[in-house]
Amino acid sequence: MIVDGQQVRPIWLDEDRITVKVIDQRQLPHRFVVADLTTVDQVIHAIREMYVRGAPLIGVTGAYGVMTAAINAKRASDRPGFIRQACERIKAARPTAVNLVWGVDRVLKKVLTAYTADACIDAARREAAAIAEEEAENCRRIGVHGAGLIQAISREKNGGTVNLLTHCNAGWLACIEHGTATAPIYEAFNRGVDLHVWVDETRPLNQGSRLTAWELGKHGVPHTVITDNAGGHLMQHGRVDMVIVGTDRSTHTGDVANKIGTYLKALAARDNGIPFYVALPSSTFDWTMQDGVKEIPIETRSPDEVRYVQGLADGGPARVLVPPESSPAADFAFDVTPARLVTGFITERGVCGASQAAIHALFPEY
Amino acid sequence: MIVDGQQVRPIWLDEDRITVKVIDQRQLPHRFVVADLTTVDQVIHAIREMYVRGAPLIGVTGAYGVMTAAINAKRASDRPGFIRQACERIKAARPTAVNLVWGVDRVLKKVLTAYTADACIDAARREAAAIAEEEAENCRRIGVHGAGLIQAISREKNGGTVNLLTHCNAGWLACIEHGTATAPIYEAFNRGVDLHVWVDETRPLNQGSRLTAWELGKHGVPHTVITDNAGGHLMQHGRVDMVIVGTDRSTHTGDVANKIGTYLKALAARDNGIPFYVALPSSTFDWTMQDGVKEIPIETRSPDEVRYVQGLADGGPARVLVPPESSPAADFAFDVTPARLVTGFITERGVCGASQAAIHALFPEY
Repeated sequence: MIVDGQQVRPIWLDEDRITVKVIDQRQLPHRFVVADLTTVDQVIHAIREMYVRGAPLIGVTGAYGVMTAAINAKRASDRPGFIRQACERIKAARPTAVNLVWGVDRVLKKVLTAYTADACIDAARREAAAIAEEEAENCRRIGVHGAGLIQAISREKNGGTVNLLTHCNAGWLACIEHGTATAPIYEAFNRGVDLHVWVDETRPLNQGSRLTAWELGKHGVPHTVITDNAGGHLMQHGRVDMVIVGTDRSTHTGDVANKIGTYLKALAARDNGIPFYVALPSSTFDWTMQDGVKEIPIETRSPDEVRYVQGLADGGPARVLVPPESSPAADFAFDVTPARLVTGFITERGVCGASQAAIHALFPEY
Repeated sequence: MIVDGQQVRPIWLDEDRITVKVIDQRQLPHRFVVADLTTVDQVIHAIREMYVRGAPLIGVTGAYGVMTAAINAKRASDRPGFIRQACERIKAARPTAVNLVWGVDRVLKKVLTAYTADACIDAARREAAAIAEEEAENCRRIGVHGAGLIQAISREKNGGTVNLLTHCNAGWLACIEHGTATAPIYEAFNRGVDLHVWVDETRPLNQGSRLTAWELGKHGVPHTVITDNAGGHLMQHGRVDMVIVGTDRSTHTGDVANKIGTYLKALAARDNGIPFYVALPSSTFDWTMQDGVKEIPIETRSPDEVRYVQGLADGGPARVLVPPESSPAADFAFDVTPARLVTGFITERGVCGASQAAIHALFPEY
């Protein structure tokens, strides 16, 4: 995507064809910092500490991580063993997003068919790049399919402003290009639809107010940052026409794991008769799980992510402690929205209902 | 209540019998600062800027504000006119809580029957003190009635930990003593019930993580601060036994205005079959409104309350900017939970259902 006149992606391979470059998203929106990843430990650190986040981007980072493992393995006595072990460690870096396992395994499969160290590296590099391009293309298609839904609302409102609400960041920063939840928004906006986005700040890490607001602002999309608490009130008063979110893992039965708080917005959308859509590439579907609430592992993270808030003070990065020093806190990173609350999925192949039958009709090969 | 061995209330009359003293709650939990109010403008400022907040406390502050107006009116040529105008200004300081209008009008009525300037002041002082004592006693009774509900859950769980969830601060800081939502919690805890409180941080002003966590910690009540997004996930997984919140205004038909985000928790409680109770003194009932969603005015406050987060850094107060400088934000302070989502009201007279019939059965005089 374009940022201040520059073409930017959240991850890319350096000209040396060895170093993986990522935007350190923890520092946005106030600082634009690029980090170099050349070791498996650095890849794991970048995933775990959320330099990179968002299901598709985690998948692509994991994929490039296999390339890094293959490079690091060059001098190992048991090269395949080294790479396999590195892959297991990368896959364990975060538990909820299914794309991480998917991306690593897909590249690993190619690597294990190569005979020499250099062939392993080449195979990993090619497959990781292919995944990145496919995900970018998937997101473009999600945008095309989803924009139609927004245009339909615009027509119903006789061209009046379409108010969308999104939670967390499922933008291009979470993907490669376009985003998932934001792809239909960008596409509709580019087609000239009058629209406005309510951006949930998305506690505790504020990916909405930090990242989605930044992305939308850079693209010129009208938006307003609100607290996570505000969406229900806005929906009660007719100020939201459609909710659109991403997902870290959705079961093929239609249950949706996404950033903590998504379930509450889905409940409010249902209570007010507002369509609730989930945008995802098919790599985010989990084809094995039946019951998302019972089966999808929900990551718990450091309580300090709740206790401290990061931001800008006196022109530099700073953080403040909000609760009393002695009060415990807990940080649940995701929740699961049951299929019954989901209007539909927007995928690279089109829009489908949130049921096993509808999902498999669109993806019959699974 | 007891704080570090000292008996404290959030508002009291100084020994000079003229100065109104309030805890400046904006500075909690990291600093304990007391502010002096001696002019009507100071009273309005303290209410609007939220040195004091919470429906019962705003009511008592408004009541003492009439005394301040009576004192300030001493040299006015048109004393009743001065006091009446001051009262209108105090009542307009915040729009949502009904107690403010109720408290001011109740004291004003007494003042207007007095003949001399000193008699006016005496009447105001007596009536404001009476309201404060009545509200403290109301909260004590709310605690007694509500503790029974918590004890019943404790018995069902064979003495296992009762997990409560509360939103915002409806503690003694919002009242005079005991609190509304917290009164049953303190009472059950004091009776030896094994309980634990999930404290919603309550964006944007973090009254949960700043004030409720502080109060509960000072009293030794086990608690955990969570993001406002987390409650639905906890309820889905059986980790919440009861939700209990306060209210800024509830219609006599059972609709509940409370801190923004309360509606989302009520939806999640209903979706998971968890009781959702609202604790309030009868002064918080609005006996005129029929439809809370349509009729209760919802305050919008400065977007900077969303954009900046206050806390502690390097041992002192600090604030950080979270979203991009150029991104707009909006701050809706309250929402309305429809009666159909409310299990019951806990009042000074006992517990009743959230219907006009049940409320009027308990308060037949209205």
